Amino acid sequence: MNTPDLQNIKEASDRIGPHIHRTPVLSSSAINVMLGAEIYFKCENFQKAGAFKSRGACNAVFSLDEQQLSKGVCTHSSGNHAQALARAASLRNTDAYIVMPETSPKVKVAGVEGYGGKITFCKPTLEAREETIKQVIEKHGALEIHPYNDYRIIAGQATATLELIEDIGAADIIMAPVGGGGLLSGTALATKYISPQTKVIAAEPEMANDAYRSFHEGRFIPSENPNTIADGLLTSLGSLTYPIIMEHVDDIITVSEEGIISAMRLIWERMKIIVEPSSAVPLGAILENKINIQGKKVGIILSGGNVDLDKLPWNNK
Amino acid sequence: MNTPDLQNIKEASDRIGPHIHRTPVLSSSAINVMLGAEIYFKCENFQKAGAFKSRGACNAVFSLDEQQLSKGVCTHSSGNHAQALARAASLRNTDAYIVMPETSPKVKVAGVEGYGGKITFCKPTLEAREETIKQVIEKHGALEIHPYNDYRIIAGQATATLELIEDIGAADIIMAPVGGGGLLSGTALATKYISPQTKVIAAEPEMANDAYRSFHEGRFIPSENPNTIADGLLTSLGSLTYPIIMEHVDDIITVSEEGIISAMRLIWERMKIIVEPSSAVPLGAILENKINIQGKKVGIILSGGNVDLDKLPWNNK
Repeated sequence: MNTPDLQNIKEASDRIGPHIHRTPVLSSSAINVMLGAEIYFKCENFQKAGAFKSRGACNAVFSLDEQQLSKGVCTHSSGNHAQALARAASLRNTDAYIVMPETSPKVKVAGVEGYGGKITFCKPTLEAREETIKQVIEKHGALEIHPYNDYRIIAGQATATLELIEDIGAADIIMAPVGGGGLLSGTALATKYISPQTKVIAAEPEMANDAYRSFHEGRFIPSENPNTIADGLLTSLGSLTYPIIMEHVDDIITVSEEGIISAMRLIWERMKIIVEPSSAVPLGAILENKINIQGKKVGIILSGGNVDLDKLPWNNK
Repeated sequence: MNTPDLQNIKEASDRIGPHIHRTPVLSSSAINVMLGAEIYFKCENFQKAGAFKSRGACNAVFSLDEQQLSKGVCTHSSGNHAQALARAASLRNTDAYIVMPETSPKVKVAGVEGYGGKITFCKPTLEAREETIKQVIEKHGALEIHPYNDYRIIAGQATATLELIEDIGAADIIMAPVGGGGLLSGTALATKYISPQTKVIAAEPEMANDAYRSFHEGRFIPSENPNTIADGLLTSLGSLTYPIIMEHVDDIITVSEEGIISAMRLIWERMKIIVEPSSAVPLGAILENKINIQGKKVGIILSGGNVDLDKLPWNNK
């Protein structure tokens, strides 16, 4: 498979349709009045396993035949991809071996276990993750499904934007958070195929700004000691996602930790929905005036809703 | 107006339609599997001003002519009716004078102020409320809109069930929390008019069980020193709501404080939506096996979503 084309994305949508939610698109008149814009939130926090990651994981796992699945699948992930892959594997009656950093939020570990995933913990570094997954593959012969550097994953994540544009029509701007770039690559491809005049703008925490720097300096810069509450966005871009982002994304902007928390709380209070910090990153950047959306029609992908309710940022002061 | 009939409820629905949300009905496959039932949650937490109270308040205020509204409206309320009435009054360009107990949650006080309501605080007793509202009426000549003991309010609250049954068809059971009984009266009337075979079952906190006792002892018993986290359910039944409840409600059951908190957290975690403690009362009673719903189709009214995020029950331990 090469860079997914529109046909690949539509096939992914058909493939995963029976196994995921077509999530709703919500608006808040209070937030629209506050920002002088028309914002449509694509609620992947309501997605199966609590995040958009179920799209990519289902697309990858349901692309495989029985033979390919016979020894299970494996991945390393800080959380949402892990849950999504464990769930997708269980739907195909195969094993999911998950390598997770030992610092992963409790709620995400419990989620993986709840779907029957088999966890191996490792130190929270890219090196430790890669070393540990190598061992898992050697031991079990499981097939690795990378969280984002995989065209099947990218095509799966793109289906969220397919649905969003079907529901709201052409927007002026579509925004997504960026971590490894799977969601952003898919968002950018789907947008440019269906609504080429729409700007695609990514938002990233200042404290994990490798994509921002890579994009603006025009060279791949890995994530170094990222330290953000948006724990879904700690990873570096991948060799497949970086070129798609350079070609199809219009801008990448950043947001402070305070901005992420404010936006998260605003969404909870005004929309009465639970989103995780990563979901709040685009709105946080808007609140910090990193982009002018006055009078614009804006689609925002809310990436997920897996939050540890015992550790809310506004209760940690 | 007498006890609202189906025509009155349909008129209320038409009257308030432009001013409220037709709220979604959500399900959770995880909760359905856990309870072996098919549960449909009517999400009044997404309603304007954050609770079903906007239905009754809009129906009452939009029933009045300019002359009747000229000196404003007033009420006493622990919170959600106050916000809803302040909002409805602002839509009609008139004043809302709100008497609130000084113990009202901060988020609800801020909500009333946000809609331009004019607050007078009083001691948290029925006597103090009634004395204070008398003074407000004398001073301003405002028209009192009682939070629940008013047929226009009851007809407005009934519209939630009208929509729920339109969306899910006939259910085996419809459940609502009970405080003053405005929501419960409306729920019972709408259900019995449209789907008479459906059982209507109310749930109430054990720590504020006046409706439970009144129903089962067959005589009106006022609320005495209620003490529950479900702050929307502290009030006694009214002279108009009590007879409707005795005639049309099939059962009233109770739930412990721990049960309310568990159910609230379950809804937050599995459904990724924010509901206030009162909303969790029916599910809490189910979790405590106060009612058998195995294999049944159950509609539950989630009454509201106005929660103080700085004071979550699981962070107060």
